[in-house]
Amino acid sequence: MSKVHNFSAGPCILPQEVLKQASEAVINFNNSNLSLIEMSHRSKDFVDVMEKARNLVRELLNVPDTYEILFLQGGASLGFLTAAYNFMKDGGSAAYVNTGAWANKALQEAAKMGKVHEIASSKDKNYNYFPTNFQIPSEASYLHITTNNTIFGTQMKKTPISRIPIIADMSSDIFSKKINVSDYDLIYAGAQKNMGPAGTTLYIVKQSALGKSGRQIPTMLNLETHIKKDSMFNTPPVFPIYVSMLTLQWLKDNGGIEWIEEINNKKAALLYNEIDNNPLFEGTAKEADRSNMNATFVLTNDGLKDEFDAMWQTANISGIKGHRDVGGYRASMYNAMPIESVQVLVDVMKEFTQKFA
Amino acid sequence: MSKVHNFSAGPCILPQEVLKQASEAVINFNNSNLSLIEMSHRSKDFVDVMEKARNLVRELLNVPDTYEILFLQGGASLGFLTAAYNFMKDGGSAAYVNTGAWANKALQEAAKMGKVHEIASSKDKNYNYFPTNFQIPSEASYLHITTNNTIFGTQMKKTPISRIPIIADMSSDIFSKKINVSDYDLIYAGAQKNMGPAGTTLYIVKQSALGKSGRQIPTMLNLETHIKKDSMFNTPPVFPIYVSMLTLQWLKDNGGIEWIEEINNKKAALLYNEIDNNPLFEGTAKEADRSNMNATFVLTNDGLKDEFDAMWQTANISGIKGHRDVGGYRASMYNAMPIESVQVLVDVMKEFTQKFA
Repeated sequence: MSKVHNFSAGPCILPQEVLKQASEAVINFNNSNLSLIEMSHRSKDFVDVMEKARNLVRELLNVPDTYEILFLQGGASLGFLTAAYNFMKDGGSAAYVNTGAWANKALQEAAKMGKVHEIASSKDKNYNYFPTNFQIPSEASYLHITTNNTIFGTQMKKTPISRIPIIADMSSDIFSKKINVSDYDLIYAGAQKNMGPAGTTLYIVKQSALGKSGRQIPTMLNLETHIKKDSMFNTPPVFPIYVSMLTLQWLKDNGGIEWIEEINNKKAALLYNEIDNNPLFEGTAKEADRSNMNATFVLTNDGLKDEFDAMWQTANISGIKGHRDVGGYRASMYNAMPIESVQVLVDVMKEFTQKFA
Repeated sequence: MSKVHNFSAGPCILPQEVLKQASEAVINFNNSNLSLIEMSHRSKDFVDVMEKARNLVRELLNVPDTYEILFLQGGASLGFLTAAYNFMKDGGSAAYVNTGAWANKALQEAAKMGKVHEIASSKDKNYNYFPTNFQIPSEASYLHITTNNTIFGTQMKKTPISRIPIIADMSSDIFSKKINVSDYDLIYAGAQKNMGPAGTTLYIVKQSALGKSGRQIPTMLNLETHIKKDSMFNTPPVFPIYVSMLTLQWLKDNGGIEWIEEINNKKAALLYNEIDNNPLFEGTAKEADRSNMNATFVLTNDGLKDEFDAMWQTANISGIKGHRDVGGYRASMYNAMPIESVQVLVDVMKEFTQKFA
């Protein structure tokens, strides 16, 4: 069978060599003659995996020693709740920037726990831009942002200047570009974009910021619980963590964040250039706020939909159907997507226009 | 390399054919030329997996139509909280039977939410028995039990007769024997014993019992959230659910619960018979309450520890070191463990006694 060009929005493409190693580990891990998934998480073999994964995060993102790194469960959706429990002062408030469906869910969850200031929202234009002009209330416990919005194809280009702590859901762009961890008190991210398979969630947290919300936090939602136990308070999701470790190792071996950021910039430039110059396509997100991870675009002539769909399917392109909230197409170009696959899509777009324009 | 006899307490042994299929799916799932872990959870391929997994649970455990089946995250530890949120009436109370470390954690979590009646505890004898003589307070919202206690090697032999709803953490013995689902309003179980790899948690819940706690339940902890979205409110842990589905299919193909219960009874009888008849060994749990899943035992002469350890290691036995709270040994004999491996352990025990008694 020929190669699939996998533009899925998540779970999404992972490096081929990672998949190969992961597949082998399911049969025989570390020459133990046991499967990775049938051994104790307390075994030296797996404790090493967890430690390697943590160390790779620290090295790749240059995480200061004052921050702890955790691999938990529940996705960003449980992160919404965890963030509010650990950081929103009892009787206090928090500020949220509403940049899309997930940002809004984060906000709604916090609103169940206290007062929420929606200090900016791009809902008025179907979330097609990333608001930058807002006042941050000084009495809020934190400012919450969603750095990349997969559905709407927008991405934060500059961290806001804030006198209150910043919490960021980076599920869909972590490890895709350089970040300054010290700008944040908490970063959290579901694994299933640039880090690994669905089933684990990364937390990077400034330890000194914890224990101050004045709330009684349920055990599993208390980040201090997991810090004390090195992410092994209960049985961790062994396979998702292992594959995340492999993916981070792949990233490091190839040149780390600097290397991937350059490639991601090139891939995005290649596709957006075609979208902008091809008369049959139109981007949906505001140019300045376009996501390097998820490019959203529509046909200028909807009557040609069947023709375009047939062409990309013939080219073995997969997963570019747009989300129902935007329509059209969404090409997700996460870390493991080679520029060659983006080129295939661009070629199809060109050929389509030659035929039908 | 020769076969490992894997007595790990969890994550634990899984069927070889399941591991083989899982390994293949990580490279190429359903002949899609995509890995299972890099495709959308909304793809038909994965939606089918989820549906098959649910149907297998329903069929194997004879789950009535009035019950919903969910595959979530967080392990039983998050289940402790989820159970209390969904079932303990606001301002009300709940009754807990304290049969070990995990039962006690469940109780402690509920105690943060309301009044808890610890109606029975075997802590006085280091949890070596399963209390059966207790009064269930009629004002409590539910009775919580932990059906099998991995650390202490005890198992509930008969569901209590109760006029209030029963909630059971069945993490370590679900699918090992026949149960009557209608006896419970909620059953929950981490996957990593008889169901699959760590990373997903099964919930079987009587739908009509939900929505009555009078609490504002956080979105991710509200079982109704997940019922409405068929366990796909957010991205599910794709790989753990897939492997659970394969393991349940393996169980069905081989004869289902009746088949495995008979084998589990035979394995347990074989090992306990040796423990009882061999002068160098002694069981730690009360005979009537012994677990078919986890047999805990100690040497009658601790001075021979090194000799015994050397012998089972030579026989390629793995994972029988006891938990620190009990000491000695723990042989876990979950569904996928063949009786041949139990026989190998019994043979080592016999040989050990011939040499050293």
